[in-house]
Amino acid sequence: MPSRVYLDWNATTPLRAEARAAMVAAYDLVGNPSSVHAEGREARRLVEDARGVLAAAVGALPRNVVFTSAGTEANALALSPGTRGPSSGPVQRLLVSAIEHPSVLAGGRFPADRISQIRVTRSGIIDLHHLKALLSDGPPALVSIMAANNETGALQPIADAAKIVQEAGGLLHVDAIQALGKIAFNINAVGADLATFSAHKVGGPKGIGALVVAEGVAGLEPVLKGGGQELNRRAGTENVAGIAGFGAALKVALQALPKDAERMTTLRDRLENGIRATAGAMVFSEDVKRLPNTVLFTAPGLKAETAVIGFDLEGIAVSSGSACSSGKVQPSHVLSAMGFNPAVAQGAVRLSLGWSTEPDDINRVLEAWRKLGNTLLRA
Amino acid sequence: MPSRVYLDWNATTPLRAEARAAMVAAYDLVGNPSSVHAEGREARRLVEDARGVLAAAVGALPRNVVFTSAGTEANALALSPGTRGPSSGPVQRLLVSAIEHPSVLAGGRFPADRISQIRVTRSGIIDLHHLKALLSDGPPALVSIMAANNETGALQPIADAAKIVQEAGGLLHVDAIQALGKIAFNINAVGADLATFSAHKVGGPKGIGALVVAEGVAGLEPVLKGGGQELNRRAGTENVAGIAGFGAALKVALQALPKDAERMTTLRDRLENGIRATAGAMVFSEDVKRLPNTVLFTAPGLKAETAVIGFDLEGIAVSSGSACSSGKVQPSHVLSAMGFNPAVAQGAVRLSLGWSTEPDDINRVLEAWRKLGNTLLRA
Repeated sequence: MPSRVYLDWNATTPLRAEARAAMVAAYDLVGNPSSVHAEGREARRLVEDARGVLAAAVGALPRNVVFTSAGTEANALALSPGTRGPSSGPVQRLLVSAIEHPSVLAGGRFPADRISQIRVTRSGIIDLHHLKALLSDGPPALVSIMAANNETGALQPIADAAKIVQEAGGLLHVDAIQALGKIAFNINAVGADLATFSAHKVGGPKGIGALVVAEGVAGLEPVLKGGGQELNRRAGTENVAGIAGFGAALKVALQALPKDAERMTTLRDRLENGIRATAGAMVFSEDVKRLPNTVLFTAPGLKAETAVIGFDLEGIAVSSGSACSSGKVQPSHVLSAMGFNPAVAQGAVRLSLGWSTEPDDINRVLEAWRKLGNTLLRA
Repeated sequence: MPSRVYLDWNATTPLRAEARAAMVAAYDLVGNPSSVHAEGREARRLVEDARGVLAAAVGALPRNVVFTSAGTEANALALSPGTRGPSSGPVQRLLVSAIEHPSVLAGGRFPADRISQIRVTRSGIIDLHHLKALLSDGPPALVSIMAANNETGALQPIADAAKIVQEAGGLLHVDAIQALGKIAFNINAVGADLATFSAHKVGGPKGIGALVVAEGVAGLEPVLKGGGQELNRRAGTENVAGIAGFGAALKVALQALPKDAERMTTLRDRLENGIRATAGAMVFSEDVKRLPNTVLFTAPGLKAETAVIGFDLEGIAVSSGSACSSGKVQPSHVLSAMGFNPAVAQGAVRLSLGWSTEPDDINRVLEAWRKLGNTLLRA
């Protein structure tokens, strides 16, 4: 039986070996990072080392990095009424793009009547005119736009949005979870006031994330209260093993970028061309800049649920859109916001390449698609 | 140089080897538990296996276990206005004992004017008369009482409290973080409606916890919103490695109990007697039932900060009260609630025994205390 194809970061990459070793070493440090004794200080050092890696990676100061249990918690912490910039008062409302992750669409701690959605184009790019119009019509806003969409991979015009938001006296939060380790991302270069990250998207462990704030951004209300951890911004004993794994994975991922991005882009282009050549398939957001590793496609009559099972039986792991909505069967809100009807949205299949993806993996996916594309469509 | 003495679960116990292996195996499963493909299902299986272990350990149904990022998040989720029992309406207010963990004292999502504190005795035991009086004076309440205090180890009269709360039409939440794996704890035996747990207190990884609810308890408002994970009660990609480590550690800890508890009690008694024999020391809550592993003591004129550093230099890891309040230097709210003045509270030192504690560890601690107790007091 041939081995399985898992395009994303698989278990055998050197990156995962580094992160695994870091996690084990961290677990073996028995101390609580809040304890004063030597064991506590050793655990603290690991946490601070990882904080330094993330801070340096995205252009932040270490003290402005808050580790959280995942991207979802980091987004909830970011979307905090009362947040203010170095020279502005607290934000009064929240503007989120219509294609944000469900944890952002949930709106953090803003009441529903203080949240508005920013439209996107058919290519899945945020409509900056609409952003400008929304900003001009009300008090200072916190604006949340992702760096790259998790379903289509479409890169958003963050730097342009930042200028517009700044001119309107607002603050910009960037969910950069999909971007980290795949494209260069620096909070100062794009002008983000807050940004969120997640370890497993750079091959690190699941269940660890971070919020980064620009110097001078303050007023965040903690989501988790109690102990004084993370400079009073996030209570709870730290996930020391997860944090150490995050730092180790990120370090390796950053070294591999941009060579890795170039290699993935080449593989992705070959994958996309092969996909398009069968069963009248189309790739979403194909006319705009995207992450080097993400392909969301469909074909007339395709059912994503059937396709995922079909690929799985062929030994290939693919997803129907995002994996973040276990138990939710409604069609993708992203494709819906892009103007596709539910029938099309329910046929979308996502392939995410990773560091470990080899040319032969692409061959096997295309072979399976040639076989399944027709079979599934006939069904 | 002699090795360090770390009384709590140290890195060399068989329990930690099991948990470490489980964490590594879990990290090596690259799938997202919410994904439908084989890799996703494998990760899902690990999560559900661990859920089954915890559920069986505490007498709950697996579907009533919600994994969280730590005890702090589990407590925040538990303390949810709107929670209701199988035959009662939503709770209207919150009663917490004065010696709860800071994450409980923070009150979850209850407004400050809906929270009252239950007094405790000088021995650190909840005052049931005061609980009864508070319950009789207002609408249905959620009551939060810990199974065992994290500083003194004092066991609380949970079963008696549960009867009182039930008669008053309220719900009982038990923070059982210190109890799990050290004493038998079953939600049905004690009559708890909600209970919280944390992995690192049974030797598992830091940064993973759980909330368990009794069958029929509903209405909990999620703390983290977005994806549909944990049956829509806790959004965010699961900390799969942490959850697997939690399950593995708990399994071993439960097998070792009660032999382990007996062994720890013997060691603890010897430790306490030795502590008391020097420098006029006293053990807090010594006249009441306590966990088999916790000793909180002081001596006239002792400064905990100095003592922690002194022990550390002697190669022994001890804490000043709880480790959960990094950066907070105020005296223990627990000792304060027990009626001790700040000078006494600031002199309290905590020793926590674990599975790996050996008789020789106790000898070394006592040797250090005989040396330091006098030196430090002279200073």
